[in-house]
Amino acid sequence: MNPIQLQQQLEQFLLEDIGTRDITATSIFPVDAIGEGVFQAKATGIIAGLAIIRATYQSLDPNIRVVLYKKDGEHVTPGETIAKVTGSIQVILTGERVILNLLQRMSGIATMTNHAIQLLQNDKTKICDTRKTTPGLRMFEKYAVTCGGGYNHRFGLYDGVMIKDNHIAFYGSLEEAVHQVRRKLGPMVKIEVETESEHEVVTAVNAQCDIIMFDNQKPETIAEWIKVVPPTIITEASGNITLETIAAYRYCGVDFISLGCLTHSVQALDISLGRV
Amino acid sequence: MNPIQLQQQLEQFLLEDIGTRDITATSIFPVDAIGEGVFQAKATGIIAGLAIIRATYQSLDPNIRVVLYKKDGEHVTPGETIAKVTGSIQVILTGERVILNLLQRMSGIATMTNHAIQLLQNDKTKICDTRKTTPGLRMFEKYAVTCGGGYNHRFGLYDGVMIKDNHIAFYGSLEEAVHQVRRKLGPMVKIEVETESEHEVVTAVNAQCDIIMFDNQKPETIAEWIKVVPPTIITEASGNITLETIAAYRYCGVDFISLGCLTHSVQALDISLGRV
Amino acid sequence: MNPIQLQQQLEQFLLEDIGTRDITATSIFPVDAIGEGVFQAKATGIIAGLAIIRATYQSLDPNIRVVLYKKDGEHVTPGETIAKVTGSIQVILTGERVILNLLQRMSGIATMTNHAIQLLQNDKTKICDTRKTTPGLRMFEKYAVTCGGGYNHRFGLYDGVMIKDNHIAFYGSLEEAVHQVRRKLGPMVKIEVETESEHEVVTAVNAQCDIIMFDNQKPETIAEWIKVVPPTIITEASGNITLETIAAYRYCGVDFISLGCLTHSVQALDISLGRV
Amino acid sequence: MNPIQLQQQLEQFLLEDIGTRDITATSIFPVDAIGEGVFQAKATGIIAGLAIIRATYQSLDPNIRVVLYKKDGEHVTPGETIAKVTGSIQVILTGERVILNLLQRMSGIATMTNHAIQLLQNDKTKICDTRKTTPGLRMFEKYAVTCGGGYNHRFGLYDGVMIKDNHIAFYGSLEEAVHQVRRKLGPMVKIEVETESEHEVVTAVNAQCDIIMFDNQKPETIAEWIKVVPPTIITEASGNITLETIAAYRYCGVDFISLGCLTHSVQALDISLGRV
Amino acid sequence: MNPIQLQQQLEQFLLEDIGTRDITATSIFPVDAIGEGVFQAKATGIIAGLAIIRATYQSLDPNIRVVLYKKDGEHVTPGETIAKVTGSIQVILTGERVILNLLQRMSGIATMTNHAIQLLQNDKTKICDTRKTTPGLRMFEKYAVTCGGGYNHRFGLYDGVMIKDNHIAFYGSLEEAVHQVRRKLGPMVKIEVETESEHEVVTAVNAQCDIIMFDNQKPETIAEWIKVVPPTIITEASGNITLETIAAYRYCGVDFISLGCLTHSVQALDISLGRV
Amino acid sequence: MNPIQLQQQLEQFLLEDIGTRDITATSIFPVDAIGEGVFQAKATGIIAGLAIIRATYQSLDPNIRVVLYKKDGEHVTPGETIAKVTGSIQVILTGERVILNLLQRMSGIATMTNHAIQLLQNDKTKICDTRKTTPGLRMFEKYAVTCGGGYNHRFGLYDGVMIKDNHIAFYGSLEEAVHQVRRKLGPMVKIEVETESEHEVVTAVNAQCDIIMFDNQKPETIAEWIKVVPPTIITEASGNITLETIAAYRYCGVDFISLGCLTHSVQALDISLGRV
Repeated sequence: MNPIQLQQQLEQFLLEDIGTRDITATSIFPVDAIGEGVFQAKATGIIAGLAIIRATYQSLDPNIRVVLYKKDGEHVTPGETIAKVTGSIQVILTGERVILNLLQRMSGIATMTNHAIQLLQNDKTKICDTRKTTPGLRMFEKYAVTCGGGYNHRFGLYDGVMIKDNHIAFYGSLEEAVHQVRRKLGPMVKIEVETESEHEVVTAVNAQCDIIMFDNQKPETIAEWIKVVPPTIITEASGNITLETIAAYRYCGVDFISLGCLTHSVQALDISLGRV
Repeated sequence: MNPIQLQQQLEQFLLEDIGTRDITATSIFPVDAIGEGVFQAKATGIIAGLAIIRATYQSLDPNIRVVLYKKDGEHVTPGETIAKVTGSIQVILTGERVILNLLQRMSGIATMTNHAIQLLQNDKTKICDTRKTTPGLRMFEKYAVTCGGGYNHRFGLYDGVMIKDNHIAFYGSLEEAVHQVRRKLGPMVKIEVETESEHEVVTAVNAQCDIIMFDNQKPETIAEWIKVVPPTIITEASGNITLETIAAYRYCGVDFISLGCLTHSVQALDISLGRV
Repeated sequence: MNPIQLQQQLEQFLLEDIGTRDITATSIFPVDAIGEGVFQAKATGIIAGLAIIRATYQSLDPNIRVVLYKKDGEHVTPGETIAKVTGSIQVILTGERVILNLLQRMSGIATMTNHAIQLLQNDKTKICDTRKTTPGLRMFEKYAVTCGGGYNHRFGLYDGVMIKDNHIAFYGSLEEAVHQVRRKLGPMVKIEVETESEHEVVTAVNAQCDIIMFDNQKPETIAEWIKVVPPTIITEASGNITLETIAAYRYCGVDFISLGCLTHSVQALDISLGRV
Repeated sequence: MNPIQLQQQLEQFLLEDIGTRDITATSIFPVDAIGEGVFQAKATGIIAGLAIIRATYQSLDPNIRVVLYKKDGEHVTPGETIAKVTGSIQVILTGERVILNLLQRMSGIATMTNHAIQLLQNDKTKICDTRKTTPGLRMFEKYAVTCGGGYNHRFGLYDGVMIKDNHIAFYGSLEEAVHQVRRKLGPMVKIEVETESEHEVVTAVNAQCDIIMFDNQKPETIAEWIKVVPPTIITEASGNITLETIAAYRYCGVDFISLGCLTHSVQALDISLGRV
Repeated sequence: MNPIQLQQQLEQFLLEDIGTRDITATSIFPVDAIGEGVFQAKATGIIAGLAIIRATYQSLDPNIRVVLYKKDGEHVTPGETIAKVTGSIQVILTGERVILNLLQRMSGIATMTNHAIQLLQNDKTKICDTRKTTPGLRMFEKYAVTCGGGYNHRFGLYDGVMIKDNHIAFYGSLEEAVHQVRRKLGPMVKIEVETESEHEVVTAVNAQCDIIMFDNQKPETIAEWIKVVPPTIITEASGNITLETIAAYRYCGVDFISLGCLTHSVQALDISLGRV
Repeated sequence: MNPIQLQQQLEQFLLEDIGTRDITATSIFPVDAIGEGVFQAKATGIIAGLAIIRATYQSLDPNIRVVLYKKDGEHVTPGETIAKVTGSIQVILTGERVILNLLQRMSGIATMTNHAIQLLQNDKTKICDTRKTTPGLRMFEKYAVTCGGGYNHRFGLYDGVMIKDNHIAFYGSLEEAVHQVRRKLGPMVKIEVETESEHEVVTAVNAQCDIIMFDNQKPETIAEWIKVVPPTIITEASGNITLETIAAYRYCGVDFISLGCLTHSVQALDISLGRV
């Protein structure tokens, strides 16, 4: 994660939660009352986003000391200590909610990603994310996917071409669309095409696109269509694949399975802050 | 929702997704190719956040025309048309993902809130949200809760006092903490106290706080403890209550049940954009 | 004050004053010429906003050292030293004006608040502020009021309901307006009603609002009307009350007197920076 | 005023006051309830900042219609209508406070400036402002001074050199300081020198600075010292001159009198919004 | 170009130039004095960035009317009219310099790009840009390159991998670096490798990178080394190639020649604003 | 340079280049791999902008250590070490491009300015810049001009009046325009007039403007016209003067020669980062 973007967004999140001041903490505690707190896992999963703890407290008060006991991507179990913070009690409590909201969410994503990989049980097929992320959190969520062992698909409309069903619906010809795009691209951009029929797969192969996505297809269908795709073209299965259905895609032969659920339907991993 | 904050955050979300440009759409379509698209529900639920469609396209291109067929808080069923957009195809497709990511999330929250109300079947007990929202999206998510029929708890650390378990853990005396806070408050701020034992409930009553929250307690326990709370004090049940367990709280007698899951574990409501 | 908002706004204020560079100081002094300056009171009053001195210099140059000799809320007399700064002379002088403009204003507010309390001579009635603050400075000015011994009314349109004369003028029924609002509120929001007749006071009492404000009424009138208000409802006198007239409100019986003049007609407290 | 800076700052001010939403107005009025309001003067003075009314409502809702009946710099008397607004009642009331806070302050400044000019009764001596403005409002306040008939001194540390007492205190030689500065300046920057003794006036004249300020001197002293200043050098009286003392400076001969009180100790001009 | 980023950056540029106000134009012209101006080419070249004219004036005053007579990428000759603007003279003149500074720069880039293509006289080898752009202007400058007929290399460190000499210098093994990177990449990212010896070219080929750059090599050397590169790998010549030397690369066989000079050493194309 | 503006703009430039993350460096190097790099000149010239190296790395990682071996304004020759950086290799490489793009540009400007001074060989005539700077970089570029020995003309429309050909074209009378402006100006603002005929020069002299610019005139013409200008008025030659033509202006007698080319047609000075 870009450290400057991280810092700027954390400050925005803290402004959202704290507003003009934390009425409770500043009323109860003098600013120089010192204490120690621990962040602990309360569920089993993969931790992601630990840099957020230090960066958040750094923004609020450079005198808070943070010690991390875990690294991003490691397993945690209930009761395990993740980090210890020492400093102004007022500040420790003021920063708590923003840290937990973000850390729990990112760890939930990492955990689900890891779960998907275990369900798939196939080293040749990788799990990746989509653009169905929470607005404003893409950097955080895509990073969390990698902590869980997954891979990042494109980050936005700017770093990769994907010709989707709507592009074809409005434009007409898949083949022509690929040519149209290619005429304008520099050397670093890849072209992916969404396909919904075997005919579209063949067209995409002939148009020499870099990646072919099988959109909303059953594993058996993919296993059939993939035969016409040469090994130089990367393949991807996508469209409403979930933890319930992913195992069925184990042998369909694609290089990547992309899961929108990793980021659009997150279960937060329970983490808490307590007094030492 | 504050229209200025809405506009500013939408522009941030669009910058996140579009970056320097939408390579695909700008390569395929000339900017003056005109088309028409429809946003349609693909699942049953409550719609929330429709203002986002117009505001997003307004930011990208003032010439896009948007017609809404629904209002926030209304039910939608699969296939129902929510909105129609007419204008530059390029722009319609460039804005699609940000709109869907936000609209689906907000509608998912509204739908879950509404579901909770139906499961509870008790007009005297209201559903409300928590601060366990997605960083950066609090205004959107809290608004979605009201679209589903729920109520908003405080928005942040600045608009209400909540003395939580950690405040007591670090401070010592619940009673003294309430007094400490009250000495500093103006006329408009309410004080809520989290309680975890009947003794704490009694202390909170004696300290004349405005709201008593029963934190992580079974319905039967709450039904017992609530007897010592006078009707002038608002009561709230909170702590890991979910759609699975909420019905059990039907007759425990509290004024509000707050659900963190409404915002920290959202299921997006499926909505899509298609060509007319 | 939220330290992140403090830092961000100070940087804005410094950009406003310094622009592209301080032509005078950078032309006269080499950046490594070191000196020592003192901030001294030049009038009698209450000091408020001392955190600004360190935060401002921290933004300009982390090597400036600041020692504070006073705490917010303490009295100062002419000639008393408030703070000492050591470091680059160039930077000490570049930051001077922004610090003084803000510190003098905040100390002026604290001093006037304290003066009002002394004039009132009544521990049961508290002084509070209004939303008639300087645009962009609400957090600073409301904090200064508390340094002078006053209390904060709501911070904005978002953290409390106030049904004012214009709401009634445009809506019609005070009673109905209260019901309308109450139907939409969560547990943490209070409702205040402005009243301008005894009939409105009775209506507000019956509508069970949380706070009743007597708007622009003489002390004798308030003393009369307040009789129908039960002790569970907070009372407030407001409307063009100034230091000249406040003493007359000593025994009218309200819980709060709010003073717009504290923030809309400030007399800056004279403070200066000099060489040691 | 720069229209882009105006718009950006107004949006900041509105965010400060409205936060996530105006609970009162959005609860009472449906967004499509239409009404008409008038801004009226409630005191005698000079109006300044009328562009703020339209710009504020434009930011909140482009459908609000604003008609102005006055121009900046014109006199107003109690009861006079300044502007009429038509549109969503909700929006009219939500924007009220920010507009009034700014308009009253700017009009207060214009009125005080105009008062100073009338007290001075001397066309040859102009009134100007200082850098003792409210942090964040310099553009607004300096513009208001011109509406009242005054002139703007430099806007910040970037658009003019002023060698002040502290520069001399830390540097040593006034003469050397002027030379030091001049060696680094381009063609467009003027040099002003603060003087506190006749000897310093002579030094400043010899150093050929562009403006000489008599700092904190009695009118008689200035009338004496000014004799050695050639007409090509502009003269300025400054330092704690107020409306009470300005008349005494009528014949001291300076070109400008600068008044810090115009902006650091403002009396807001009373203006109100009412229903038509 | 992303229209939201365009608008936000233009407003920043206007704030930089106008600051608090345009003293000259606002002093000479009343805001309602209407006039008409024309933007005209004063040199021969390719125009780029015309959207800036309308967007700039739109930010300053929505009533300015702009008519464009050219499209981005078209040739212009001295005296040719590019655009006509009608509206407030004050505003037309206030916006002039920012528009010209940006338009001249972008047109200079487009013109130089086009010149390079003509000097190269080889349809199979494309001209592309680098990351040696002006800080803050990358979107504008990369867009200008496409207006001149060139192609965009990666936009930043985020949308493509380039293993450069420094990566190898610090890491050790080119081969291992490629593997290291590949293990972490999703499907949409390409890997480019800078090579400085035939051995490195072979290594890069074996590592199956997507693009091989010949860094700072003579055309003859490239023509030799390129023989070992299979047609599935894109080739690029880079490193201090200028308009003086580009023709020598005509037959070296690479797919792309990247030119840092297009953006780091721009000659502005002369354009002026005049009265009709 | 204002350190706050410097920091804010550098962070923007880093966000532009790094986006969500540096894929290459973060994939190859672990964040705790430490190394040492040197910035070296690869051409002869004047260095400018060294503060950028430390400020950039400070933003990315406070643990990077930077040692400078040069000061702004000093000569460098090929191979000379300018600065050494020690710390995380990942961070050293991530920040490289932004630093070089800015440092090379600023050093190019300083070098060209210095070259102009040497070509002019006349201590009485100073070189200054214009407003033809790169949008967003004015502070940086104007500072670089001073590093090369040049002087700054006004920074924007806000800190000096310049009545240009277009003002006259739209307004009519030069004389009247000067009067119009003067009536509104405070003590610190200078008035410059562009002249294109001897008659205009005489008019400008009579109008007692502060600076007269000879716009687009030959040296001989200037030498003739300047005779009617008294020594109290500053003179400036401007308009398409370049390094090729500047020597011809050596004896024309003006105080300043302003060169747009210094900033609108920069040749970057070659500087590189290498491993120690």
